Amino acid sequence: MRLSQFHLRTEKETPADAEVISHKLMLKAGMLRKLGAGLYTWSPLGLRVLRKVEGIVREEMDAAGAIELLMPSVQPRELWEETGRWEKFGGQLLKLQDRKESWYCVGPTHEEVITDFARAELASYKQLPVNFYQVQTKFRDEIRPRFGVMRAREFLMKDAYSFDIDEAGMAASYQKMHAAYTRIFSRLGLDFRAVQADSGAIGGDASQEFHVLAESGEDALVFSTGSDYAANVETAHAAAPAPRAEPTETLRRVETPTQKTCEDVAALLDIPLARTAKSVALFAGETFVLALVRGDHAVNPVKLAKVEGLADYRMATEAEIAEYLGSTPGFLGPIGAARAIRVVADREVAAMADFVVGANATGFHLAGVNWGRDLPEPDVVADIRDVVAGERAADGGELRLVRGIEVGHIFQLGRKYAEAMGFKVLDANGKATVPFMGCYGIGVSRIVAAAIEQNHDSNGILWPAAMAPWQVAVCIINPKHEAHVAEAAEALYRELRAAGIDAVLDDRGLRPGAMFADIELIGIPHRVVVSARGLEAGTFEYRARTAAESENLERQALLTRLRS
Amino acid sequence: MRLSQFHLRTEKETPADAEVISHKLMLKAGMLRKLGAGLYTWSPLGLRVLRKVEGIVREEMDAAGAIELLMPSVQPRELWEETGRWEKFGGQLLKLQDRKESWYCVGPTHEEVITDFARAELASYKQLPVNFYQVQTKFRDEIRPRFGVMRAREFLMKDAYSFDIDEAGMAASYQKMHAAYTRIFSRLGLDFRAVQADSGAIGGDASQEFHVLAESGEDALVFSTGSDYAANVETAHAAAPAPRAEPTETLRRVETPTQKTCEDVAALLDIPLARTAKSVALFAGETFVLALVRGDHAVNPVKLAKVEGLADYRMATEAEIAEYLGSTPGFLGPIGAARAIRVVADREVAAMADFVVGANATGFHLAGVNWGRDLPEPDVVADIRDVVAGERAADGGELRLVRGIEVGHIFQLGRKYAEAMGFKVLDANGKATVPFMGCYGIGVSRIVAAAIEQNHDSNGILWPAAMAPWQVAVCIINPKHEAHVAEAAEALYRELRAAGIDAVLDDRGLRPGAMFADIELIGIPHRVVVSARGLEAGTFEYRARTAAESENLERQALLTRLRS
Repeated sequence: MRLSQFHLRTEKETPADAEVISHKLMLKAGMLRKLGAGLYTWSPLGLRVLRKVEGIVREEMDAAGAIELLMPSVQPRELWEETGRWEKFGGQLLKLQDRKESWYCVGPTHEEVITDFARAELASYKQLPVNFYQVQTKFRDEIRPRFGVMRAREFLMKDAYSFDIDEAGMAASYQKMHAAYTRIFSRLGLDFRAVQADSGAIGGDASQEFHVLAESGEDALVFSTGSDYAANVETAHAAAPAPRAEPTETLRRVETPTQKTCEDVAALLDIPLARTAKSVALFAGETFVLALVRGDHAVNPVKLAKVEGLADYRMATEAEIAEYLGSTPGFLGPIGAARAIRVVADREVAAMADFVVGANATGFHLAGVNWGRDLPEPDVVADIRDVVAGERAADGGELRLVRGIEVGHIFQLGRKYAEAMGFKVLDANGKATVPFMGCYGIGVSRIVAAAIEQNHDSNGILWPAAMAPWQVAVCIINPKHEAHVAEAAEALYRELRAAGIDAVLDDRGLRPGAMFADIELIGIPHRVVVSARGLEAGTFEYRARTAAESENLERQALLTRLRS
Repeated sequence: MRLSQFHLRTEKETPADAEVISHKLMLKAGMLRKLGAGLYTWSPLGLRVLRKVEGIVREEMDAAGAIELLMPSVQPRELWEETGRWEKFGGQLLKLQDRKESWYCVGPTHEEVITDFARAELASYKQLPVNFYQVQTKFRDEIRPRFGVMRAREFLMKDAYSFDIDEAGMAASYQKMHAAYTRIFSRLGLDFRAVQADSGAIGGDASQEFHVLAESGEDALVFSTGSDYAANVETAHAAAPAPRAEPTETLRRVETPTQKTCEDVAALLDIPLARTAKSVALFAGETFVLALVRGDHAVNPVKLAKVEGLADYRMATEAEIAEYLGSTPGFLGPIGAARAIRVVADREVAAMADFVVGANATGFHLAGVNWGRDLPEPDVVADIRDVVAGERAADGGELRLVRGIEVGHIFQLGRKYAEAMGFKVLDANGKATVPFMGCYGIGVSRIVAAAIEQNHDSNGILWPAAMAPWQVAVCIINPKHEAHVAEAAEALYRELRAAGIDAVLDDRGLRPGAMFADIELIGIPHRVVVSARGLEAGTFEYRARTAAESENLERQALLTRLRS
């Protein structure tokens, strides 16, 4: 490619409305242009990178035996009603009516469509295992689309769906995808980690997320130094708490006139924060719920929602708090409620003795509280908190936290969708049986942004080789428009292309400063400068994008370097 | 590819609900599966063919200097309001609201989006000419989706948009695309023709359609033996009529008690059908319009709608006919209307003398009618009829008619969109000027169906080489499961792949009849059978898909044949 024949349009200024570095750099490099909230046009430069990612994903899916097909984006409501997700999927599902007023959605995922395809196409265990995939534009109506293509509404996804005759087969198909994903992210040159994950709206029994590690990541990931245990904080567990100690204090009411937080109460009473319990007032269905976590812990909303009955919980209003607890916020606790409440205690709280809670009276807390003696045992004991860096893991190691950007997610779905949609195949005994399904997603467009979050410097993007729009930029410095300089650059460019190196010729005629700034910004891994002075000396100026200095190399040395 | 590792599922029965041969064969071959009205999943087999077409389209677009990008499918209403097409595009535009109740459409075409992109990215004549394209899923909410992917609602399209500083540049960009399209359809191995076309909802000054010729085509195409003139019947013209002759008859009222058609009246009066004029009653805005064509001609609705004031015409109701003409249908004419009417005469009718029309009285016609004498000259004279095969062309040749399937359409749009959306660039004198635009579409998925309409026999599809899912099928006949037979087939398969031939190995273990039927149905151009008997004789059985007989070829002869 000659840049004079390409459409490259970089920006000097950093766009004011971009919050994260990948979004800023993608706009500065001219990879994206915003069309609307969460809607982006991929410019020719952006698309080159997107296609490189797509290509590697496709190669590895094919190599893993998955078979590509292409499903419609627009999907009929009836299918989604078979699984109950027309209602349950929530506001992310973009619904629409056609001219006949039939309802459809713009597909956010394709479990229903593939299961419909499978129930028509697969009749026997002999056709299993099979894994179908597609690379396709998806739409999710995010409440708050942001960070460019990191959380766009329309995005490119690779989604795959496996069908197996039994659970062991499903586990094997899942492992194959785990291995394929590992190869994909390795080939892309990304620092990544697979972690245990919550299944969310997709559902199923087991799932893992693949994260690109980056400080700016939206997800907190937990791993242990004691084993290969790694999990999203949404599902990570620390070691179980020590057994509850015997009570040593008596229950007493303490005056805490202005102390509304655990921190303030602990300071006033001069006790560790870990001796206090935080009460979070919720409403779920018709029930008032008090969730308790230690004062030094934070409630994890995903874990909390997994407690039975709390799937659709919301925070209680002040009026509800007054009605059920007879108190104002800041002084809440599980003792002496005005009406019946349900107490959900984090397992660490359930293991506490002689602890402090709010007294359900403005200006007062209770100290020396003990389960069983001062209040009934909790209705539910569960792990509902975020783990904390440095605490002990179940395997005896220490828990560490890093941040990641989710770029892949694999699920063992079990029979959920096949059962809901009446999909059966004949097994080896001729008996109709419901197959086991897995599904496997990769956010192709998000990978591009995640790679930048992980790989950039103050001059711009540092693409991993496999994702770079081009491998080598041949830059011409030729202020006097000398024919032999242009010809030498052209010859080198052709030689590199002939050697299978994806080179681009910067023949735009820019001044060196502007040209080099562009090439660094868009992250070309290798730069070669062809100039009259260099040609006189018989050398080309070579510089790796990550190197501090450039070198003058003779033709053969340059070619050897670029081939390696 | 080994078919045992692929998902191939052919049907023995011809699907009852498919009307055209391509739809029948695509379903029988298992290329498609219907999800909903006009919504199809492309199976792995179908997708292979679709990707071959897409690949050739992309290569030729790139070779023509067009630059690929990717625009969103979901588009904000505001853009479409800038051009007025939010209302004007009509029912095919699938509109929807997001969770914030903002309106969007699922893109049926991208003139608005690309112009929005261009006005942000292009500032100077130095950046022109430029041609951006994408290959993307489109949605058009067809009233009557039918014929499988021939007229689907969701379909794959290549759309390109050129920008030039002046009209001559636009014409040059248009010609480049004309040449690229010619190469694309030639490489695809299709019998096609480019014809002059109506611009329709896209608009603009000049446009041509590319049609795959097939008897089942929805479009009638007209070409002349006298030059390279070729046009869609919607816009085709015959030679102008001879000048009007002088009147020789007097006006007279003739009794036609049961003769409601021109044919019946001509038979009764024993005159040529070409001496009668048909009156078609229309309403456009507030005006009653009578459109006149010769009795042996048919009104062309697209041409009629291009008459000033008739863009939104509809047929008149019987009540309106009674009110304006005082007659019942079958006896209508331009003379003696009860209220003011507008007369639009086809230019052939305007050139008639001594002709016959309805008398606006049930059971009567008028004969010996002459313009100027018996009724005023028509309000409008225009070409509003279908041309007829065999008539004289303007170039002196003879007009011929063929049927075609539209697979491409190129337009010179002029400044229409750029003007509406306030897009200007600086010209060489530093003056802001509105650029000239062209747009160029190819129905990628429709090409697959059109190719089948043109290339099939009673056994199935006859793919042109470039579109075939695979070039060669290596079929194993091995009822005794002999290792050397399987190995020989495998070795041949590998040798063909190594030679760059896209071969597939049919290792499914089917009986020969079922296997050959599948391979013929899915249209693999070349078939090689490996069997114990053949191996003993040192030959392979080779048969081209289009050949009547198979031949036994030795290894080297076979390879030579397949390489050529």
